[in-house]
Amino acid sequence: MSGAHLKSVRNSPTVDELHEWDRLHNLKPWSMMNTWREEDGQIIDRGDGIYMWDSHGRRMIDGPGGMWCVQIGHGRREMADAISDQVMRLAYSSPFSTGTEPAAILARRLAEFAPGDLNTVFFTTGGSTAVDTALRAMHFLNNRRGMPDKKIVISRERAYHGSTYLSATVSGKERNRTRFDKENRLVHFLPDVDPYRRPEGMSIEAFCDQKVDDLEQAILELGPENVGAFIAEPILCSGGVIVPPPGYHKRTLEICRKHDVLYISDEVVTGFGRLGHWFASEPVFDIVPDMITCAKGLTSGYLPLGACIISDRVMEQMTGPEEVLFSNGYTYSAHPVSCAAALKNIEIMERENVLGHVREVAPYFQERLRSFEKFPIVGDLRGMGLLGCIEGKVTEGRSSLALDSDFGTRLDTICEENGLLLRPLINMAVFSPPLIISKAQIDAMFDIIEDALEQVSSEMEVDG
Amino acid sequence: MSGAHLKSVRNSPTVDELHEWDRLHNLKPWSMMNTWREEDGQIIDRGDGIYMWDSHGRRMIDGPGGMWCVQIGHGRREMADAISDQVMRLAYSSPFSTGTEPAAILARRLAEFAPGDLNTVFFTTGGSTAVDTALRAMHFLNNRRGMPDKKIVISRERAYHGSTYLSATVSGKERNRTRFDKENRLVHFLPDVDPYRRPEGMSIEAFCDQKVDDLEQAILELGPENVGAFIAEPILCSGGVIVPPPGYHKRTLEICRKHDVLYISDEVVTGFGRLGHWFASEPVFDIVPDMITCAKGLTSGYLPLGACIISDRVMEQMTGPEEVLFSNGYTYSAHPVSCAAALKNIEIMERENVLGHVREVAPYFQERLRSFEKFPIVGDLRGMGLLGCIEGKVTEGRSSLALDSDFGTRLDTICEENGLLLRPLINMAVFSPPLIISKAQIDAMFDIIEDALEQVSSEMEVDG
Repeated sequence: MSGAHLKSVRNSPTVDELHEWDRLHNLKPWSMMNTWREEDGQIIDRGDGIYMWDSHGRRMIDGPGGMWCVQIGHGRREMADAISDQVMRLAYSSPFSTGTEPAAILARRLAEFAPGDLNTVFFTTGGSTAVDTALRAMHFLNNRRGMPDKKIVISRERAYHGSTYLSATVSGKERNRTRFDKENRLVHFLPDVDPYRRPEGMSIEAFCDQKVDDLEQAILELGPENVGAFIAEPILCSGGVIVPPPGYHKRTLEICRKHDVLYISDEVVTGFGRLGHWFASEPVFDIVPDMITCAKGLTSGYLPLGACIISDRVMEQMTGPEEVLFSNGYTYSAHPVSCAAALKNIEIMERENVLGHVREVAPYFQERLRSFEKFPIVGDLRGMGLLGCIEGKVTEGRSSLALDSDFGTRLDTICEENGLLLRPLINMAVFSPPLIISKAQIDAMFDIIEDALEQVSSEMEVDG
Repeated sequence: MSGAHLKSVRNSPTVDELHEWDRLHNLKPWSMMNTWREEDGQIIDRGDGIYMWDSHGRRMIDGPGGMWCVQIGHGRREMADAISDQVMRLAYSSPFSTGTEPAAILARRLAEFAPGDLNTVFFTTGGSTAVDTALRAMHFLNNRRGMPDKKIVISRERAYHGSTYLSATVSGKERNRTRFDKENRLVHFLPDVDPYRRPEGMSIEAFCDQKVDDLEQAILELGPENVGAFIAEPILCSGGVIVPPPGYHKRTLEICRKHDVLYISDEVVTGFGRLGHWFASEPVFDIVPDMITCAKGLTSGYLPLGACIISDRVMEQMTGPEEVLFSNGYTYSAHPVSCAAALKNIEIMERENVLGHVREVAPYFQERLRSFEKFPIVGDLRGMGLLGCIEGKVTEGRSSLALDSDFGTRLDTICEENGLLLRPLINMAVFSPPLIISKAQIDAMFDIIEDALEQVSSEMEVDG
């Protein structure tokens, strides 16, 4: 582009200019490619606590908590100060050759938070790179062990693990609606683990048996000598807050151990308090995995940071007498300012007992969510901690994509008009508000959703 | 890990504790796996201007500029303030569904800086994810065009493009010293383009002809219908600051156009002033590529950010009437605080005329570098702008890895004792100081290197 507009760009743009530049120049993740440049998107201007304001000054409750990440809420002065202090002290030093105080302390703290012998931290720039690193570490491990074929990753339908080529490869969402490639030889998907979608008449216990058996059968069919890892979000969040049946996590871990398959617990969403614990793997689901990936809540979204935490057992197997490089990592691995933000985030969560608060208000949050079963238009209500999902009922004969999509989008549109952002996902709407949300604010949020459900109910009856 | 040490971690740790935690818990990129937990690494404590101080209070010139990224120097109050202001205003909003002021303005500015019709910006978290995105966009493009086989990426020996699985796949460095997998079916490497390594007696012009022919022959042998992209750093920096021969860039671009192969110019290092221009592709190398990837200098390393900038021509080919998702991107794509840091970085570079300063001092920087040809131990001296590399001469019969490594490491060790950090790379040492470095500071830096070269010369004579 020519430099003709340099002057206008340097000055403060008008709201219209901002919207134009955003539309013309900023290609967003998950854009619909037929319309991306034509639609005038929403621009968020500021945030405070559980609220955000758009460029037109409209206030909304941040229902998705950014994108499952704004644990301590927006606009915290302490975060700004801690970040600013670290910028002045040391904003950058190469993580390849040097350590920094914030990175060393944070690595230590993550080792403390992580269960069992998960004591080695590899820092990345977010969740996708944490998963990419975990899977590459598995490649490294099995090459080191002389098992070069042991590389297939078992994942699940509707799982989401990121969007680098490798982390996208093991994600089970939206495979038919995109033109991106995946490395399909490296992955095997297990069928949906959503109890809501279990065959009619099947008990939860029988469904769990079946889902656990799906994993073992897949390992046996692929051959344990070809299966490197099982990667699993404790709750499949972007897939629609799917909580596998009770006992599933522990039993799948046991099967992985039995067949020498690494268990990677992807806690990018469930970590850092979303379920009331630093990590959910052990306290909530009774598992000590081989690796945990985390990001998002680690900094409350204030700055980009991710981590892959690896067990001593795996690290020992990756280490040998040979001069071999762990040639993985990023310029911005362990960024000192991001690590300082994470440390302040942890300090705030400890001082304000955010984990305890989540454990205290979560039952009420889930109770209000479940009260929506009175709406016939609702198919399923599910969640755990401060995670929730409302799924529309798929009416007989109305299951095409466009119609299924309607429910989530309609609900979201009405809620937004009334001051609440949600995240529509096809025929679902999901939400995961800042963890500092009060009981009164939970009420405000669910009141708006309740009104919207009433409105959608009447509209869809009229349409149908 | 148990919680027994929580208390000590919350308090300010001693320097010894910091070193211990860093050693035990922080696995660093490119660690040597046989020794990583045993070696006591360097911890950097603070930075100011071109200087950094380690945990023992020793001051050093930041020769590598962090890792090719600290353009405006360390410890800038304006950066801390701009970052802090954006944290307070809006630290996070989902880039999937919303825009923000800093992202919209930055996208517009990058479109202005980029040559030709490169007007669409996709933000990422750093260089690896920018390259991963560029290559995935090529997959998307050629699937959209009905050419699903047109996916092979042509890269070059000693190229470095990142360390996600896909960006590592197209990197040509260190392939024999690691146990990580790469997707070798997706890549083809051209031989070394380093003029220093050209056959004895061959002219630079003939070498250029040969290198250009290497590309065309590879395309023809693989079949143009199978080749999706050529990815090239204008200067192969991590590979040892390799400057391809004059005319190479333009002629390789023409060959790509002739055979309908995308040209991706990886400006992660060369962008943002390292060669005296925002991007080097057009003003220095006379090319308008199809995509440019950038990161590092974009924020001067103050916060993680990367971008892939795409031409209108490519975007038009990726866009169609179908409802297809561009399902790529990250929670921390277009992070508002990172974008605000980039805008402030650009503002500072403009106000202080950093690009002009680089163009002014670079000839002197290169002259001092070239003066080291007087040392018989030096094999090659090369660079451009504020990029430099000193390569040790490989003595006859002393070409094993350990001995080759000696030169870079010895030079680095001596320089460090005298207050200058370098980056050793096998038998080379590279440097790329902050762009604000003054002429007097350039002298200080090269004086230290000159003394070190004298010392290494005498030591290696004794050894040899």
